[in-house]
Amino acid sequence: MKLKKFSLDELASNLGAKVYGDESIIISGLATLQSADRSQISFLANPVYEKYLAQTQAGAVIISDDVYSKVLKGLGSMSVLIHPNPYLAYAQLSHLWDNSPEPIEGPAFIHSNASIHESAVISAGAFIDSGAVVQSGVVIHEGVVIGANCVVGEDSIIGKNTRLHANVTLYHAITIGSDCLIHSGAVIGSDGFGFAPNKGAWDKIAQLGSVVIEDNVEIGANTAIDRGALDNTVIEEGVKLDNQIQIAHNVRIGKNTAMAACCAVAGSTVIGSNCVIGGASGIAGHLTIVDNVHITAMTMVIKSLTTAGVYSSGTGVQPNDKWRKSIARLRQLDKMAKRLAALEKLVKTSS
Amino acid sequence: MKLKKFSLDELASNLGAKVYGDESIIISGLATLQSADRSQISFLANPVYEKYLAQTQAGAVIISDDVYSKVLKGLGSMSVLIHPNPYLAYAQLSHLWDNSPEPIEGPAFIHSNASIHESAVISAGAFIDSGAVVQSGVVIHEGVVIGANCVVGEDSIIGKNTRLHANVTLYHAITIGSDCLIHSGAVIGSDGFGFAPNKGAWDKIAQLGSVVIEDNVEIGANTAIDRGALDNTVIEEGVKLDNQIQIAHNVRIGKNTAMAACCAVAGSTVIGSNCVIGGASGIAGHLTIVDNVHITAMTMVIKSLTTAGVYSSGTGVQPNDKWRKSIARLRQLDKMAKRLAALEKLVKTSS
Amino acid sequence: MKLKKFSLDELASNLGAKVYGDESIIISGLATLQSADRSQISFLANPVYEKYLAQTQAGAVIISDDVYSKVLKGLGSMSVLIHPNPYLAYAQLSHLWDNSPEPIEGPAFIHSNASIHESAVISAGAFIDSGAVVQSGVVIHEGVVIGANCVVGEDSIIGKNTRLHANVTLYHAITIGSDCLIHSGAVIGSDGFGFAPNKGAWDKIAQLGSVVIEDNVEIGANTAIDRGALDNTVIEEGVKLDNQIQIAHNVRIGKNTAMAACCAVAGSTVIGSNCVIGGASGIAGHLTIVDNVHITAMTMVIKSLTTAGVYSSGTGVQPNDKWRKSIARLRQLDKMAKRLAALEKLVKTSS
Repeated sequence: MKLKKFSLDELASNLGAKVYGDESIIISGLATLQSADRSQISFLANPVYEKYLAQTQAGAVIISDDVYSKVLKGLGSMSVLIHPNPYLAYAQLSHLWDNSPEPIEGPAFIHSNASIHESAVISAGAFIDSGAVVQSGVVIHEGVVIGANCVVGEDSIIGKNTRLHANVTLYHAITIGSDCLIHSGAVIGSDGFGFAPNKGAWDKIAQLGSVVIEDNVEIGANTAIDRGALDNTVIEEGVKLDNQIQIAHNVRIGKNTAMAACCAVAGSTVIGSNCVIGGASGIAGHLTIVDNVHITAMTMVIKSLTTAGVYSSGTGVQPNDKWRKSIARLRQLDKMAKRLAALEKLVKTSS
Repeated sequence: MKLKKFSLDELASNLGAKVYGDESIIISGLATLQSADRSQISFLANPVYEKYLAQTQAGAVIISDDVYSKVLKGLGSMSVLIHPNPYLAYAQLSHLWDNSPEPIEGPAFIHSNASIHESAVISAGAFIDSGAVVQSGVVIHEGVVIGANCVVGEDSIIGKNTRLHANVTLYHAITIGSDCLIHSGAVIGSDGFGFAPNKGAWDKIAQLGSVVIEDNVEIGANTAIDRGALDNTVIEEGVKLDNQIQIAHNVRIGKNTAMAACCAVAGSTVIGSNCVIGGASGIAGHLTIVDNVHITAMTMVIKSLTTAGVYSSGTGVQPNDKWRKSIARLRQLDKMAKRLAALEKLVKTSS
Repeated sequence: MKLKKFSLDELASNLGAKVYGDESIIISGLATLQSADRSQISFLANPVYEKYLAQTQAGAVIISDDVYSKVLKGLGSMSVLIHPNPYLAYAQLSHLWDNSPEPIEGPAFIHSNASIHESAVISAGAFIDSGAVVQSGVVIHEGVVIGANCVVGEDSIIGKNTRLHANVTLYHAITIGSDCLIHSGAVIGSDGFGFAPNKGAWDKIAQLGSVVIEDNVEIGANTAIDRGALDNTVIEEGVKLDNQIQIAHNVRIGKNTAMAACCAVAGSTVIGSNCVIGGASGIAGHLTIVDNVHITAMTMVIKSLTTAGVYSSGTGVQPNDKWRKSIARLRQLDKMAKRLAALEKLVKTSS
């Protein structure tokens, strides 16, 4: 791995940040306040970590103007970058030290062990790694990276600069936009779970729709997105899906919604834009979730959410013995409610 | 994609349905009531969508006799197919317009990039795509399709006309019946999670059983089915498993049971026939679930279910502030119950 | 498959167990009490199965001294091995009859369809199967098995005798210890889910850390472990992770902790040693779980657990009609609590 070095001054210009302290120091990495050394820059975004500011060994730290005014004395000789949003500044700097392997730019590179159907169109600057299989009629745009052992199904289209990490599977006729990132093990376009009951058994319903992934979407490892039954399953621009998510047929997820790992969204549900869905939540089928809904982790969404806001469910962890009592009582709750009502009546009558 | 066309009359014969209206119109696709155009046929199965019947642009619609009698006037000049079960009729028609790539019939086709052990038996009409690996002793029956980059482990047997989509993994000695459909990322035959505690660490227990998948089973994307510890894990005929499901060692799932995505079934549990298990439900180990049990989504099954019926758990979504109150009160419930009892005693004594 | 045969005497020496009965009988397999025949040995570890001891057809059975004293008369002429921990004895014997395909020992074997970068180092006795892709700078130690169609990313290191089953994906710069077992579909080193909000959209944060898997770890099918944002995600020695688990960035899991299938651990959470985490549990981010915590299945852990013990949450399955009542009442619980308090006050005042 290459060690990339920048002067603090260069980083400050890059971020549009103000420097206090020695602008000439050389920074060769990014680290947390707790683990940084003199050659690294750190940042304070979450007030919880403010306690580490005094002891950090970082060569420089990115903080907001407010924090700077407050902790000025505690900083000693450490250099400081002032930025209105240190977390965003960190996000921007992180790419300077990203060591993920990047394919070399140039004409299309196709590994000799890849298997490309003669009818597929591979644009300039695409990179197709060993063992990848590109089926008939596929169109791969400029700068696309297809990782090792990926399979791209018939007639699928992959937009500019999108990257599939190793072992991604696209079924047939899938459309992926540009600048998407799809992690290993993701499966896009498998059949929706559609069966008609027929004399005690299940008749399969062919899944005639497809999946459309718009631009700038990230899809996590081992996430599965089913193709639509008749219309398409649609993941709109800027959506971020974490690992191990299940998106059923005909679902639509609105622009810039982020969904944490292990969520399951059942068929035909429509989720709005700019929602944040906590991990391992389940959303039943045929529901509508409006824009700007925030669902906390492990929530069980069994009705539409028609106003923006924060939603939750679940009982939260307890010591097992207390939990047993709570749960036993929960089962008696209907009777308790009736006893309470009866008692109220009795007391009112007698008083 | 080819556009397949049929006269309404042909479709009616195909379904054994009665036609009202113009039998000669040409239908080239299937769509929802909301999105269909004049060249497409639609259907009404769920009364919720009856409101779309008056405005649909579909060339024809499949409805039941009852609905026909009721909405007769609203249909205008639209042609109608009368069928006792429009959803089943839809399921049957859906296959007419299925554009999933189908391998060409003929002698066995083995892609030049597939890797087939010399001892494997590949029957006539099998199709093995690029990058697939078929290990020693495997038997692949007629008409089987092995998708790109699948791995079929030693001594496994795959029955007639079963299809593995791309990137499926079968471990060694797995038996798959005929007419099964296995989606990408599925893993069948991985080790059950068996360890004996030994001085603070875990001694692995070799998993000596296997997995038997009977005929006509569908297994969803990224679903995992572990091999048995001593006996086999068994998925009976006609079972439908959705995506991201976990089936632990020694589980048996009865005939025609359907399980929605993200369920987890722990070791040695036996599930009966014709059950419907809602998504993201968890079923603990060593339980028995009888036939015809219906479990709603996200249910936590921690005891055997010995009578048919509908079962549920979980608290369901609430606005976060109300949820916080409910949960805080739930923790006080045992005390509340005691206070209620004390109060009842007091009131009774004093009255 | 080879049928391996041992005299009871040999098995007894192997286990350090005492024999009662005929030491010369030949045993060719391991089975449950219910299914064993005269050629097989069985064991009794769980008292629930004691009822099967009288009828078992097993040639021999492993039991504890206590059980032996108790059931002596019931055993008839069956041979018995006495061992202080029959379950552990079973674990040890299970490996004698393990038919999992084992690569042949000898110099490194690299399948002609594998794709190995010229800069990769492959040690003696390694086995790399068809379709596997080993990228630049990878180091593979002695006795490592890389299954068919695995992808090992740039600069990753795999320790002695570790086995990757088919279709495992390692990203770049991953470190795996020795004697690990990684099941199919597992993805190690995908990007952590890190984004900074920026004007309604999400700016990606490059994930600069990696994943370190220590020695003797087992990782289940389709489990995903994300690389750290700045530091590493760490799975300590002896940890056992079941299938379909999600480990987010910066998580640390302590020595010999076992986690059942479908758990999700959110970012930066630290789990102690020797914990047992039940299946489908969710653990929120930035929490600390101390050593020796036992979490039952489907628990929702939303706060740190600072003392060892057993923890739970969730409401447990009920018939749907009773569940509906419980849940409706749960929503009224805050009001009920207030009504109870008011009533107590009223009764106290009036009495």
